[in-house]
Amino acid sequence: MDFRTIFSAIGALTAALGLAMLLPALADLVVGNEDWLVFLTASLITMIFGAGLWASSTGHKSELNLRQAFLMTVSIWVVLTIFGALPLYMSNLGLSFTDAMFEAMSGITTTGSTVITTLDTTAPGILLWRGLLQWFGGLGVVVMAIAVLPMLRVGGMQMFRAEAFETPDKILPAAAQIATAMVIVYCILTFACAVAYWLAGMGAFDALVHSLSTVATGGFSTRDASLGAFDQPAIHYVSVVFMILGALPFVLYVGMLQGSFGELFRDSQVRLFLYLIGLATMIVVFVQLTGDIARGEEAFRHGLFSVVSIITGSGFGVADFSTWGPLAASLFFVIMFIGGCTGSTSCGIKIFRFQVLARDLYQHIREIVFPSLVYVKRYNGRPLPDTVSTSVQSFVFIYFSSFLLLAVLLSLSGLEPLDALGAAATAISNVGPALSPELGPAGSFAGVSDVTKWLLTIGMLVGRLEVLMVLVLFTPRFWRA
Amino acid sequence: MDFRTIFSAIGALTAALGLAMLLPALADLVVGNEDWLVFLTASLITMIFGAGLWASSTGHKSELNLRQAFLMTVSIWVVLTIFGALPLYMSNLGLSFTDAMFEAMSGITTTGSTVITTLDTTAPGILLWRGLLQWFGGLGVVVMAIAVLPMLRVGGMQMFRAEAFETPDKILPAAAQIATAMVIVYCILTFACAVAYWLAGMGAFDALVHSLSTVATGGFSTRDASLGAFDQPAIHYVSVVFMILGALPFVLYVGMLQGSFGELFRDSQVRLFLYLIGLATMIVVFVQLTGDIARGEEAFRHGLFSVVSIITGSGFGVADFSTWGPLAASLFFVIMFIGGCTGSTSCGIKIFRFQVLARDLYQHIREIVFPSLVYVKRYNGRPLPDTVSTSVQSFVFIYFSSFLLLAVLLSLSGLEPLDALGAAATAISNVGPALSPELGPAGSFAGVSDVTKWLLTIGMLVGRLEVLMVLVLFTPRFWRA
Repeated sequence: MDFRTIFSAIGALTAALGLAMLLPALADLVVGNEDWLVFLTASLITMIFGAGLWASSTGHKSELNLRQAFLMTVSIWVVLTIFGALPLYMSNLGLSFTDAMFEAMSGITTTGSTVITTLDTTAPGILLWRGLLQWFGGLGVVVMAIAVLPMLRVGGMQMFRAEAFETPDKILPAAAQIATAMVIVYCILTFACAVAYWLAGMGAFDALVHSLSTVATGGFSTRDASLGAFDQPAIHYVSVVFMILGALPFVLYVGMLQGSFGELFRDSQVRLFLYLIGLATMIVVFVQLTGDIARGEEAFRHGLFSVVSIITGSGFGVADFSTWGPLAASLFFVIMFIGGCTGSTSCGIKIFRFQVLARDLYQHIREIVFPSLVYVKRYNGRPLPDTVSTSVQSFVFIYFSSFLLLAVLLSLSGLEPLDALGAAATAISNVGPALSPELGPAGSFAGVSDVTKWLLTIGMLVGRLEVLMVLVLFTPRFWRA
Repeated sequence: MDFRTIFSAIGALTAALGLAMLLPALADLVVGNEDWLVFLTASLITMIFGAGLWASSTGHKSELNLRQAFLMTVSIWVVLTIFGALPLYMSNLGLSFTDAMFEAMSGITTTGSTVITTLDTTAPGILLWRGLLQWFGGLGVVVMAIAVLPMLRVGGMQMFRAEAFETPDKILPAAAQIATAMVIVYCILTFACAVAYWLAGMGAFDALVHSLSTVATGGFSTRDASLGAFDQPAIHYVSVVFMILGALPFVLYVGMLQGSFGELFRDSQVRLFLYLIGLATMIVVFVQLTGDIARGEEAFRHGLFSVVSIITGSGFGVADFSTWGPLAASLFFVIMFIGGCTGSTSCGIKIFRFQVLARDLYQHIREIVFPSLVYVKRYNGRPLPDTVSTSVQSFVFIYFSSFLLLAVLLSLSGLEPLDALGAAATAISNVGPALSPELGPAGSFAGVSDVTKWLLTIGMLVGRLEVLMVLVLFTPRFWRA
């Protein structure tokens, strides 16, 4: 296998990450925090490594084949996480290597679980860096979902292959064009989000950092109480809007830039997603009202916010929904797995896979009752081939198996059974808070053991890479020939 | 729809059930327990209803179509459960209607959960009736799996369709022949099991009742401490052997009666089943030894017995494995879902479905890495069609969905989250004890609320009918035309 193209790409992105570290260095310099030197040092180390790797492997640029694309995608996430953890490890927060890796992985996979319990007093450099990690992670997820995963046929994603790509085994330059359009959309959304937060009453710095993690559906906040630290209802509603925008298919925004506005609301994935949010919100508002937990506008806002925060995989908190009783807990557990739309920054199994599953199931029942009739399955107006069904079903099966395996390992690492189940779900689905009092919206991962933290770190990576990407690398066939 | 064929079958089987109630009446008469009158009364009511239904609908006998077969199968289980509950409700145990229905459903679905906490002092009539319910249930399951489910294409079972049946839409008389052979095999196994228990040191009555529930992989015992009440290791080993025999494909025994002995051990399903038992036993023996829970032969026996009892869906207990720690708990939870071989009295998802899933997953990963190659999937030497894969995947998906839905409902009915998960798993998979201290091998379902009991009663039925059978009846299409 020719590694030069892979090294060149990793090198360039690492150097870019190093460059981005100058922003938190600047922020700390402005407020006079000594960590500005940490960020500068980390930036230099990262840029030198990145540029060196890029320079040493450039020149011989061949097109990527499938296996190189797999290896490259996984490597990029791992290498960027390690360098992303560097300033966290070196900073005066005193994080251990394990903690720094956990926090960086939670950032770059847009999970949002944290081990830092003193955010309220943490210097702006670290807070900005956490936001930037999520922002880059979110961008990486969108580009991966639109330009890489469909090519790799992971979990039925071949359904979303643009016609322009239709050449087997090669990643065509068209991917680069699409990626550029995505970056523009992503920057516009982020800017709009920051302005909206600011108009709603947030300070400029908080608005900036929260906009980075909101559009990325990441969940890192500048406060220990997350968005619950902000009293203004308008701030919560801004967050809801931009979490939803971050979880819709970005490819449809590109269509909007070109003038076709209706497409977004005709998309069956978007419609089901919004419908599910509405339904889940009604249920949790009902639970809050009958349980006398909150009332009126507050019940609606807390319900809507929590549902959107969990289904999009963001993980911001305004209220501790882990105390809302079994119906709410079950609902949050289920929507944690559902996730947002494909080709967005959100996580989980994704809406379209459930749509495919539902169609297959309906078809299966029809065939049981009337075996002699012939049906054509359709998705979003186009025929749904059986190969996509099989891919989706394999994906969901392997996704739940990974969740169960992680839960078992977490349980062996010392977590109580319910904590283990909740933590495994939140890591694999890149949500953030778990559904238990200790690890929930009101808790933190700071108290768990190092082994548990490493298991969760790996779980976040595996979930973000849609499981199969990682699994493929562990098959002997991949490395043969 | 013509209901006469359905009513005729239900009537005949109900009358047979009423006839069987004379056995416990006889047992109570022998020991002088006044419940003999209860059984006699229940027997008369049941026989009169059954014979009446049969007589009023006989004469016009047409062949069953698919939809009638579905409706008939589900109706038979429900009607027999209601009449099976009759003597339990009327007896001097003082069971409520809910308790009697729970116990009868647990019996006839071969689950083995019980609400009776005074088995040690219960009269022989009731004990024998519980054993008989499980025995009839086990027989019903085997006949259904071999003669009915393959025709109905439920969850990939079309793979096991004998060539002789290959006429679409009609249940052919060949099913009756196969059913007769099954009944003979089942009786031989039960007789051998009773004799073996007796030789191992059990009293004649205990040996008889336990043989009825062992071959049925049911789990009802005559003692509150289940088989833990018997000290002789030989009794535990006898139980292990016959639970395994009850969980192997009965169709292969018919082959053995015709002289082909090798086939049983060449069957890939049987081999994987035995291999899994070996592997799981090794793990739980290791857990017991390192945790200082038991040692030597006892550790081996308790480990083997518990693994076989759970994977076959029997639910007999000799030791409280819910206290063996997280590794053992996770393992028992997983094998609870796996279950035995298809066409046996056992429950769960069944080994062959996991084999199909594993082949599809392997194929999916190969296609991701090498999309241009073409593969042929095989199962047990024969090609595995894609329609079977889709059926199996839909089945597993709907199975886990039912489990989750039941767990949520149980949780809303007042069970603690872990109890809800454990109870949902044990009901859907028809195992018996749950994996929690309260509802485990050392506990009982007597203390849960009536709503919880009804949910579990429905869960046991849905699990036993492989979920899809019940689901089909709830589709509007089923009742149209």
